Amino acid sequence: MNTQSIIKDSSLAESGHLKISWAYRHMPVLRRLEEEFSSKKPLAGERIAICLHLEAKTACLAKLLQDLGAFVAITGSNPLSTQDDVCAALVELGVTVFAKYNPSYEEYTNFLNKTLETSPTLIVDDGGDLVSILHKDKQEFLTNIKGGCEETTTGILRLKALEKESLLKFPMLAVNDAFSKYLFDNRYGTGQSVFDGINNTINLVIAGKTIVVSGYGWCGKGVAMRAKGLGAKVIVTEVNPIKAVEAYMDGFLVMPMLEASKYGDIFITVTGNKNILTKEHFQNMKDGAILANAGHFNVEIDLKALEAMAVEKSVIRKNIVDYKFANGKRLYVLAEGRLVNLAAGDGHPAEIMDMSFSLQTLCLLYLKENFKKLATKVLNVPSEIDEKVSSYFLEAVGVKIDSLSLEQLDYLHSWKL
Amino acid sequence: MNTQSIIKDSSLAESGHLKISWAYRHMPVLRRLEEEFSSKKPLAGERIAICLHLEAKTACLAKLLQDLGAFVAITGSNPLSTQDDVCAALVELGVTVFAKYNPSYEEYTNFLNKTLETSPTLIVDDGGDLVSILHKDKQEFLTNIKGGCEETTTGILRLKALEKESLLKFPMLAVNDAFSKYLFDNRYGTGQSVFDGINNTINLVIAGKTIVVSGYGWCGKGVAMRAKGLGAKVIVTEVNPIKAVEAYMDGFLVMPMLEASKYGDIFITVTGNKNILTKEHFQNMKDGAILANAGHFNVEIDLKALEAMAVEKSVIRKNIVDYKFANGKRLYVLAEGRLVNLAAGDGHPAEIMDMSFSLQTLCLLYLKENFKKLATKVLNVPSEIDEKVSSYFLEAVGVKIDSLSLEQLDYLHSWKL
Amino acid sequence: MNTQSIIKDSSLAESGHLKISWAYRHMPVLRRLEEEFSSKKPLAGERIAICLHLEAKTACLAKLLQDLGAFVAITGSNPLSTQDDVCAALVELGVTVFAKYNPSYEEYTNFLNKTLETSPTLIVDDGGDLVSILHKDKQEFLTNIKGGCEETTTGILRLKALEKESLLKFPMLAVNDAFSKYLFDNRYGTGQSVFDGINNTINLVIAGKTIVVSGYGWCGKGVAMRAKGLGAKVIVTEVNPIKAVEAYMDGFLVMPMLEASKYGDIFITVTGNKNILTKEHFQNMKDGAILANAGHFNVEIDLKALEAMAVEKSVIRKNIVDYKFANGKRLYVLAEGRLVNLAAGDGHPAEIMDMSFSLQTLCLLYLKENFKKLATKVLNVPSEIDEKVSSYFLEAVGVKIDSLSLEQLDYLHSWKL
Amino acid sequence: MNTQSIIKDSSLAESGHLKISWAYRHMPVLRRLEEEFSSKKPLAGERIAICLHLEAKTACLAKLLQDLGAFVAITGSNPLSTQDDVCAALVELGVTVFAKYNPSYEEYTNFLNKTLETSPTLIVDDGGDLVSILHKDKQEFLTNIKGGCEETTTGILRLKALEKESLLKFPMLAVNDAFSKYLFDNRYGTGQSVFDGINNTINLVIAGKTIVVSGYGWCGKGVAMRAKGLGAKVIVTEVNPIKAVEAYMDGFLVMPMLEASKYGDIFITVTGNKNILTKEHFQNMKDGAILANAGHFNVEIDLKALEAMAVEKSVIRKNIVDYKFANGKRLYVLAEGRLVNLAAGDGHPAEIMDMSFSLQTLCLLYLKENFKKLATKVLNVPSEIDEKVSSYFLEAVGVKIDSLSLEQLDYLHSWKL
Repeated sequence: MNTQSIIKDSSLAESGHLKISWAYRHMPVLRRLEEEFSSKKPLAGERIAICLHLEAKTACLAKLLQDLGAFVAITGSNPLSTQDDVCAALVELGVTVFAKYNPSYEEYTNFLNKTLETSPTLIVDDGGDLVSILHKDKQEFLTNIKGGCEETTTGILRLKALEKESLLKFPMLAVNDAFSKYLFDNRYGTGQSVFDGINNTINLVIAGKTIVVSGYGWCGKGVAMRAKGLGAKVIVTEVNPIKAVEAYMDGFLVMPMLEASKYGDIFITVTGNKNILTKEHFQNMKDGAILANAGHFNVEIDLKALEAMAVEKSVIRKNIVDYKFANGKRLYVLAEGRLVNLAAGDGHPAEIMDMSFSLQTLCLLYLKENFKKLATKVLNVPSEIDEKVSSYFLEAVGVKIDSLSLEQLDYLHSWKL
Repeated sequence: MNTQSIIKDSSLAESGHLKISWAYRHMPVLRRLEEEFSSKKPLAGERIAICLHLEAKTACLAKLLQDLGAFVAITGSNPLSTQDDVCAALVELGVTVFAKYNPSYEEYTNFLNKTLETSPTLIVDDGGDLVSILHKDKQEFLTNIKGGCEETTTGILRLKALEKESLLKFPMLAVNDAFSKYLFDNRYGTGQSVFDGINNTINLVIAGKTIVVSGYGWCGKGVAMRAKGLGAKVIVTEVNPIKAVEAYMDGFLVMPMLEASKYGDIFITVTGNKNILTKEHFQNMKDGAILANAGHFNVEIDLKALEAMAVEKSVIRKNIVDYKFANGKRLYVLAEGRLVNLAAGDGHPAEIMDMSFSLQTLCLLYLKENFKKLATKVLNVPSEIDEKVSSYFLEAVGVKIDSLSLEQLDYLHSWKL
Repeated sequence: MNTQSIIKDSSLAESGHLKISWAYRHMPVLRRLEEEFSSKKPLAGERIAICLHLEAKTACLAKLLQDLGAFVAITGSNPLSTQDDVCAALVELGVTVFAKYNPSYEEYTNFLNKTLETSPTLIVDDGGDLVSILHKDKQEFLTNIKGGCEETTTGILRLKALEKESLLKFPMLAVNDAFSKYLFDNRYGTGQSVFDGINNTINLVIAGKTIVVSGYGWCGKGVAMRAKGLGAKVIVTEVNPIKAVEAYMDGFLVMPMLEASKYGDIFITVTGNKNILTKEHFQNMKDGAILANAGHFNVEIDLKALEAMAVEKSVIRKNIVDYKFANGKRLYVLAEGRLVNLAAGDGHPAEIMDMSFSLQTLCLLYLKENFKKLATKVLNVPSEIDEKVSSYFLEAVGVKIDSLSLEQLDYLHSWKL
Repeated sequence: MNTQSIIKDSSLAESGHLKISWAYRHMPVLRRLEEEFSSKKPLAGERIAICLHLEAKTACLAKLLQDLGAFVAITGSNPLSTQDDVCAALVELGVTVFAKYNPSYEEYTNFLNKTLETSPTLIVDDGGDLVSILHKDKQEFLTNIKGGCEETTTGILRLKALEKESLLKFPMLAVNDAFSKYLFDNRYGTGQSVFDGINNTINLVIAGKTIVVSGYGWCGKGVAMRAKGLGAKVIVTEVNPIKAVEAYMDGFLVMPMLEASKYGDIFITVTGNKNILTKEHFQNMKDGAILANAGHFNVEIDLKALEAMAVEKSVIRKNIVDYKFANGKRLYVLAEGRLVNLAAGDGHPAEIMDMSFSLQTLCLLYLKENFKKLATKVLNVPSEIDEKVSSYFLEAVGVKIDSLSLEQLDYLHSWKL
């Protein structure tokens, strides 16, 4: 078992601690779970392997799980989202970390492997990499595993594919599909953080611009909503007719990408699929168009095709690569086509991750208690956990709500008048 | 079998025909289904009993079903939403109608009974009255029935109660729960039509006002969204913590009704439950507060309590009743607490009902074909039907969308990278 | 002097009284002016001629001016905006009325003349007709006139033309240009009431539709804002580059009408100019496009050209005329191209007109006091009056605001630091 | 004459050049002016002193003015908005620079003095410091000056105070008050950049939060609009009743700061006045409230009072100071109460500054040509310049608009019908 952390530079810890401390002040649900559980050490004896975007909010989760008694090993779920100062602080806090910003492909893979080699009993995955490697290359570690949680739409898709082939070896809770997750994290989290990342990188006006949002799932809805809120005209591209009608009724232009590619000033892919922006689209695009991705993997923009078409490629500002065409046209790709909110920003707001990571925490406690009874499938988060997180959030922000009277409950359950 | 229509005044038919004709021009999906199916008479031999809000769009549905070969008998699902001119026109078109505007309670009940006495094989219900009476008082007509469709959230709740008691005797398709229905009808339909009805009745400014929306389901979301779009401040009341967080994150104030009742200029209930606004709230309300309901039944505002508190009650303008308190305070109730969009307006926009009623049509065809295979339960609308309606809508408004490439399909179904 | 009212039907008075009473309850600033001034009869001896849209809110103004001591004669400023029941009620209240709904051209002109023949000392004009006729055809009545007020952008334009030719014979206060008027009446009033009128007439969904708003002045801004708030895509056409940039930055598509005419589902002209929609645009329009005007005069849509192009013209629903082209295409014109919010609805909300008409009242008092000192020009409303109306409005809705400290006042007036 | 630049570190130039180059690519109006004028050197012989926020867009202006023939000396208008790399690049480009990030008070004053000591003939001021010092302490340089331009609302206020005391010695063009400036720069520029700066600093969710915006001028309108667009609840505080009604009608809560201070999660002052947030407000505020300023000077938040109340003060993250109270409550002040969009971000988007700085350029050319004819007053920007900038902007973004026909022009200028 290898538990020797690998990070960039342990001297960066102080900055990391400041970030973690600021984030934790804004994660009241996690703090409340700490209060409820930390003295009981309910995760004592567990070994948790985490693969998440390794920045301050994630660090708060790792620390809490450790406070609840677990051994925690963590790696980053995207090469550009890892923050080296946060890693250094986490190591000082006793967490085992395998991650650094912008690693080579070999390093990145090695980090995932090392994390699994800590012999976890529980998994927190983001995008499905840990689970995929476990089932493909690290099957020797499968036996210890009681279950896990998946944080993303992309990861759920991969898990369902695994389940469909009857290969999944332990229960996985679909944290992404909990209401208290996707309604807020995918929509308001992605919606805001994508523009925090983009605006911070380009310093251009959004008002008046035409923004093409590809994909009108919950993340895409959030991105489109915020684009509109910032004064943009929004074009949505979709493959699903129902979502397309929804985008249309929400006041957005809807058209195929081949058409949209002519009009966009900024393109944001958020589909979870590959090759959304390809050669034929690059050809259509206006000079100066800006391309960003907010989907989990950097496969939505076909960078290979773009590189082949360009006569010159240069980094012209932090996180902006300029691809120049023979005819002088330039296309700008942000953050190498990786999750722009994390690679060019600090990711989702703290209060949003507070809800998502509180779900994670409660799901891990649930898995520990119930894993023997659970099917080795992709499972929904129990609704009690889901409502608990929302209830705690409401209390934290000081919002009270009504409750049903007995008379009203009766009314809801009666079919006669 | 009693098929002699009962309506208010057959001389009103011309006005009704104009309304129906205008509506049908704006129901392209229904028109397309007419094109596809009318020559084949796929509903020949069927007897369809409909209970829906009896205005022009509903008339289009009734007429289409008749064109598809069915015998159609129809009644209204709310005493104030029936339009007498539309009824007259429908009778001229050959549909059997039992309905008039503002009937007595006895008349209203009689209309429902008469409709069932036509011995239907298929049911289209809105709020669950036909199905409820069938199971309670008209069981002799149960045997002919192949199945039915339910249009509303309220009706689904009642059906589920019936199903839970194992009493449901035929398959019911939950049309309300189809994406192509609730995403659009409940949200954009209710959202717009509630303000069409209210504004038309009160001629007051919405901008700046505080509007309390009770219930943040899909209808409530629509109402809150449009209130905001008209410049109001919105307070949402809820009993569900997740929906409450959603309202909070959507930028609305969230609080218990006991608190909200102090601030509202206009109250709109849209919960599907009873006694949302009661004595304790009326006491809190400001002088001049306006009360409207957009839920299915007129039970959300406790009018009895209000009447008991008031020293004077007078109709001061069409669809506005003024309740005067001893201290001089006045509260205004719109449309007797019945669905304000239908009782004080023309109901949902035509294009919205086009989708809902196209679902109804396709579901009736489906029931006819498949009823023997179906469980006597509340069933989901098949997703093919759901997507077909959205696809037809997109074609009608001239919107094209993308489709997945084989490579993309593969990607979505693969768990390895 | 002719003071015998001419109206449609005095038996309609009761309905008119109900409307006036409802409106007045929602005009707290007017009510406060009544309280302040009615016992003093400050307008005693004045004869006021009013040309305004003759519906309930206007009736409240007329009644107040009478209560303040004036003799009041009134006519309607648009043939389709006059409400006969309101006229009947006003006559019962002692106001002299020359107006009816949908008069012939001769009648309409006669009403204007009759109103001037009451020999007014003060004028309230809306669109400039009274003032224009006075200077052109009724110069014998000029001598009595102390001054007047103009309510609309269109009227101000005409007054400035008159002033430019040095023909204006008495001071006119540009009520339209007061902040407490145009910021609210033109923007929120027109914005809301245009859709109240349109929606009530067409019962179609606004969400998703493409709405072309021609003119991005304060009225146009209001219409575009509400269209967006109802879920529409908005195209703005403009002739002024600064307003065009504003529309662009507000997130709207901006293009010439020749282009926009291809895309619009609904066209709303609000320019104050003529021939905004003409033959070449009608040719471009989609089948089923709907045309409405919200500018003062019915000259913005070239109905003559449309009529010449159409092979058939029919009224297909109240306030909807269907123009059918040889190729089967139909265009629908609402309310004969007259102000759609007034001709097909009840006009601006009461609280909005409360501010505008309170300005009118205070301006008339000001004119009476100061007319000898005033230049015979188009004059700004004194800022004390402007701020007073906004202050009273705030008090009426219970809103308190801050005031500057002496230290802050000093700071604002100092150029050193 | 002292023309030796004083900057932080000339080795930072490369990063500065990248920033300037990126900005200039997004300033098409400036580029067009370069094309039109640079070969003619119309500013040859002029010496221009600039005091502006010294970052990349400003550098583009300085460079252009130099390209047009002028000698250019520049300093920063706020100690925290100066970017040292941009200064280094500017020096390499030949511009004389006196500025560095976070200078001492003495250094800051010295920079202003040095800039004036270059003996300018034209002034570009931002907040009024150059002009104020010129009239107070550097009167020996007044004689050379032909005129100047002021960029901000605050500066205009100071100039008007100077004018009122009849002390202003040369014509000043109120660039801030040009439509092409304040409609866009103050509103969309400030609106977006304030949240770019804040979000980037705090990484918290805006959706659901209560944001108190103090001041509903054009900047405040922009901030409130974007806060709403990001999902916040907005409270506006005002001293002007008309602006207060506007905020109210825009759907915002309006109340005195003493009340608002209890509810705010984030406070943003944008009044141009002093002591907006003071002791009594700090006492009311919730634990964790965040305070930011977007007004020109750091006087809007009374930091002295806050420091006196706090028992502990610490920098807890870049640009965040934590003030801890005896009772444990914490208030967080961003960017030391200085313009948060510039001190904690890159300031306004490039396209926005393109318009503002194009106005500056054209105004300087105008001053050079016309200074002898101009009164020594605060003057409006000629409307030809204003419209030219908006027209060029439209061309740059590819937007075409309509123009008035002769017939329409006639109509607008006629008072008869």
